Amino acid sequence: MKALFFDGHLALREVERPHPGPGEALIQVLLAGICGTDLEILKGYSKFRGILGHEFVGRVVECEDARLLGKRVVGEINISCGECDFCLWGLGRHCPTRTVMGIVNRDGAFAEFVTLPVVNLHEVPREIPDEAAVFVEPLAAAGEILEQVRIPPSVHVAVIGDGRLGLLVAQVLHNNLAQVTVVCKYGWKLDLARRWGLKVASIDGGEMLARRFSIVVEATGSPAGLDQALHLVAPRGTVVMKSTFHNPAQFDTGKLVVDEITLLGSRCGDFRRALGLLARGLVNVEHLVSKTFPLESGLEAFEFLNTTSCLKVLLVPSRP
Amino acid sequence: MKALFFDGHLALREVERPHPGPGEALIQVLLAGICGTDLEILKGYSKFRGILGHEFVGRVVECEDARLLGKRVVGEINISCGECDFCLWGLGRHCPTRTVMGIVNRDGAFAEFVTLPVVNLHEVPREIPDEAAVFVEPLAAAGEILEQVRIPPSVHVAVIGDGRLGLLVAQVLHNNLAQVTVVCKYGWKLDLARRWGLKVASIDGGEMLARRFSIVVEATGSPAGLDQALHLVAPRGTVVMKSTFHNPAQFDTGKLVVDEITLLGSRCGDFRRALGLLARGLVNVEHLVSKTFPLESGLEAFEFLNTTSCLKVLLVPSRP
Repeated sequence: MKALFFDGHLALREVERPHPGPGEALIQVLLAGICGTDLEILKGYSKFRGILGHEFVGRVVECEDARLLGKRVVGEINISCGECDFCLWGLGRHCPTRTVMGIVNRDGAFAEFVTLPVVNLHEVPREIPDEAAVFVEPLAAAGEILEQVRIPPSVHVAVIGDGRLGLLVAQVLHNNLAQVTVVCKYGWKLDLARRWGLKVASIDGGEMLARRFSIVVEATGSPAGLDQALHLVAPRGTVVMKSTFHNPAQFDTGKLVVDEITLLGSRCGDFRRALGLLARGLVNVEHLVSKTFPLESGLEAFEFLNTTSCLKVLLVPSRP
Repeated sequence: MKALFFDGHLALREVERPHPGPGEALIQVLLAGICGTDLEILKGYSKFRGILGHEFVGRVVECEDARLLGKRVVGEINISCGECDFCLWGLGRHCPTRTVMGIVNRDGAFAEFVTLPVVNLHEVPREIPDEAAVFVEPLAAAGEILEQVRIPPSVHVAVIGDGRLGLLVAQVLHNNLAQVTVVCKYGWKLDLARRWGLKVASIDGGEMLARRFSIVVEATGSPAGLDQALHLVAPRGTVVMKSTFHNPAQFDTGKLVVDEITLLGSRCGDFRRALGLLARGLVNVEHLVSKTFPLESGLEAFEFLNTTSCLKVLLVPSRP
């Protein structure tokens, strides 16, 4: 089968179709999304070697459990042991011996087929089209913030970053009745946010915005985002950090200590919340798709993502 | 009067005795303590210019309220407006227009006399000697952690750093029934902690200690402490950061995001808890005093602190 393989440089390769192990399903990939983390992996993040890709929707084509055959599914990306304390606490996403699809020691979904444990799969309801279902993984990551931080409706929240993840986070928090302002440089992406009823502000607003927000979500994907977040957050406020990047960030910890800021790392979330949001039409993802490339043109898709002011870029494998 | 003045370099100066403003008291300083923050100010932290010193015990010698005259007092170091939202919420320590004694725009206590608003003063109970009362400010800062983080008795807590603040934090948390381990390089300070019934471990324990603690308090006073804390903390755990230093810290935010760590800045605390702990003899501070210098030998005291493996160094002004 064809796959986008990374071994220090990215290439389209012809590789063997994977074989599902015990308890696993073989899934034909219908649509996959490129994430900021994929771009960071190309720079060296997590030292990954293998087939990239962790955002996908697919169809089960091989599986011990016959009821799953032919079903359209999305898949949780952390493959955990199921036996350690974290797994027993329901925190398999933090299992110390986990692999992570397309990120840590396990092949991902930028391929015609992928395998995952059956326990990782969620069936996609009929009312969610492929083009929306492919957003379940990043939408779950956005929703994770609600599992970690209590956000009363009166609280003012800034989301920094007008990228794919930032616009999902802003919608999820807005839907949760928080007072959300998307803060970024002015541009067409902020106009999009405004059309969805979100407040927007320019990051160049400077002192006007300083220390104005009890909660700030950093979703810029850049080390500079943390300094911006610390600029916006009020004393005793919380900064939620969503970006993962290859290089360590440097910031003024004095501000963190003096203002008693809480800095909270936030990663993958629960797929069920994301599926519920999409099934009920509570989040707009259709305007987030900038372009869809055939899997065979994957290198071109990465090039497009790196050089264009765009949002989500999708990959579609050819159907056999 | 004599005072230790910093204007880019530290010097003993003869300066005018301060005059208390409306609502203020004039306090004769009986004993003052040198803090890590004072050392950072000498390196440029907070760009302070004036008389250093924010840990002290003194006696009220001039005050509109006659009941305070002659009383032995300690003083909260943040001088707030009393009218903004933070002040009304009881968070005057975060008042945006505050001054901070010996740190931000207000003369401190390394002098024969100092002024403070009467509302900042707490009378020291008879059973607390000067040598213990001088620890109220750092002990309150240690206790602040208990206002910010819920620490059930079953939770394993690491305190990194065997300095003045680290040993106070460890005692306060131990007294609160947490399972505390002081983690540092082996030495006489760790022996002291062990004699108080605290568990101790060498920071060189490496992988043995990795990800073993739900809560880690960083009290090293050094930018490297944050990396050590992130090494010790378990996934979804909390790092409390107490150190303030002049230079920005650099650290791997990827670990923070992937393990969903909470990093919490923590600063000044409530003096009443500290006074209660000392009055009831629940915290050992007598073994924390390394040496007491006359105020006139203040430069020598700073030199001693910079060049010796010691704990708290005190300054005592001569009595008129």
